[in-house]
Amino acid sequence: MMKMKQFNLIISRKIIPTLFYSTASFNREASVSLVQGASRGIGLEFVKQLLVRDKKGHVLATCRNPDQSTGLLELKNQFSDRLNLLKIDVTDENTIEAATTSVRETYGYLNLLVNTSGILSIPNLLHPETTLAKVQKSALMLTYEVNAVGPLLMIKHMWPLLKEGGGKGTMRDAAVVANLSARVGSIGDNNLGGWHSYRASKTALNQLTKTVSVELARKKDPVICLLLHPGTVDTDLSRPFQRNVPQDKLFTREFSVSKLLSIIDGAKIHDNGKFFAWDGQEIPW
Amino acid sequence: MMKMKQFNLIISRKIIPTLFYSTASFNREASVSLVQGASRGIGLEFVKQLLVRDKKGHVLATCRNPDQSTGLLELKNQFSDRLNLLKIDVTDENTIEAATTSVRETYGYLNLLVNTSGILSIPNLLHPETTLAKVQKSALMLTYEVNAVGPLLMIKHMWPLLKEGGGKGTMRDAAVVANLSARVGSIGDNNLGGWHSYRASKTALNQLTKTVSVELARKKDPVICLLLHPGTVDTDLSRPFQRNVPQDKLFTREFSVSKLLSIIDGAKIHDNGKFFAWDGQEIPW
Repeated sequence: MMKMKQFNLIISRKIIPTLFYSTASFNREASVSLVQGASRGIGLEFVKQLLVRDKKGHVLATCRNPDQSTGLLELKNQFSDRLNLLKIDVTDENTIEAATTSVRETYGYLNLLVNTSGILSIPNLLHPETTLAKVQKSALMLTYEVNAVGPLLMIKHMWPLLKEGGGKGTMRDAAVVANLSARVGSIGDNNLGGWHSYRASKTALNQLTKTVSVELARKKDPVICLLLHPGTVDTDLSRPFQRNVPQDKLFTREFSVSKLLSIIDGAKIHDNGKFFAWDGQEIPW
Repeated sequence: MMKMKQFNLIISRKIIPTLFYSTASFNREASVSLVQGASRGIGLEFVKQLLVRDKKGHVLATCRNPDQSTGLLELKNQFSDRLNLLKIDVTDENTIEAATTSVRETYGYLNLLVNTSGILSIPNLLHPETTLAKVQKSALMLTYEVNAVGPLLMIKHMWPLLKEGGGKGTMRDAAVVANLSARVGSIGDNNLGGWHSYRASKTALNQLTKTVSVELARKKDPVICLLLHPGTVDTDLSRPFQRNVPQDKLFTREFSVSKLLSIIDGAKIHDNGKFFAWDGQEIPW
């Protein structure tokens, strides 16, 4: 037992130093982006595209277990001087606070915060509800905690860094918070019913983001909040539900993320608090 | 210690039989309404007006501690043959299930379910947020549990009773679920910001109610779901926040509930899933 513990400690001592580099290599003119929920799917693709398209940009990729994400570790090998990996579990505010301290000490600011983590189903534990009769309180609460509360706590802690960053190192006038929402979170567009937990969590995320956007505007902070619907993207999240999606409506991660990055790049102050689909069309609340 | 226990038992034996009457006095042609969150404020006023205006109507009033609500105990004295008091704490699904069993056994159906319980502030514990910097996870979670999840679980359990009841004993074609929402839950109407926990909980309630309404419509169940904004009403909930409300915009409970009951009485199947203010105007999502 004792041996096992030592082994684990050695493993983590070996891995942790490879995940984070020091300020020595950081040029304070570069853009700094943080992608939360980056271990796979849309989040991982955001990290990749952000690193590839801006040769000076620095990226922080966060997830629950960075040293277990093959995708992130591969990118870390390739972009070791511009990518840092950090642990954030949005259900544990302490990890958000600790990550905020790391970002503050290493970079001092942020220009982009992308919140992508979200749960829809967990095998043998959480299933999107097909009827009211199957609604479970535990599913409603957990989905809300991860999909709505998590992103809000991220913004709460990163807010001073985003204000400090504004549009620095980017083509924009302001920093951007991009919260991954979903069309099924629209109440006005809800003609199918079902998916109670997921829908309500995304609708609440929309309201929380709008609420934050009002305060940012009133304080004239150089920060724009966006809600983005990525379309139905071929990821682990959507895989169990792709059966009824027409082939031309099932996007690759590459396509969807490139579209969302165009919206982020072109964001103006008057877009603050708006809800856009991947094609730039506004979605009703 | 032993003596104290016996004393308490005697107290409850004295009170409980006065709270619930048996089926003997129940005419299965009468309307049966259940008001959840009925100990005070808008809920208590619903109970009063429902009892007064329909001389044959039966009313179930539920709250966390019915034997501690002076208002309900007074009504129970006055309307002992048509009012039953039941314990429901919406954060404890077991109490909802137990109450559902009581209603099924005593009446067999329901024509109206009014969900009024909601939290906005709790002295020294929960304060509506004036800025993102003050957002607390615990407040977000508790407010969601009471204001959004609670009403949904009520509908889940009462659904078969509402289907059975439909418009029986009323002027309507269908049973009604009336969920007390709030204009601040509207995303489109959110120009002020703040109150993150409360806003998001009511927005989620709107989405959850809309989601239920879609299933009711698809199944052609004789049940109409409504979301109602009561205006700013002079109750314990609004008291700490009345300072900036113009006198003519601060409604009495009597006025607001009479307006909401007119909407409920006039509800048609095509109103299912809609969000109305006290004056019958639809509120944007």
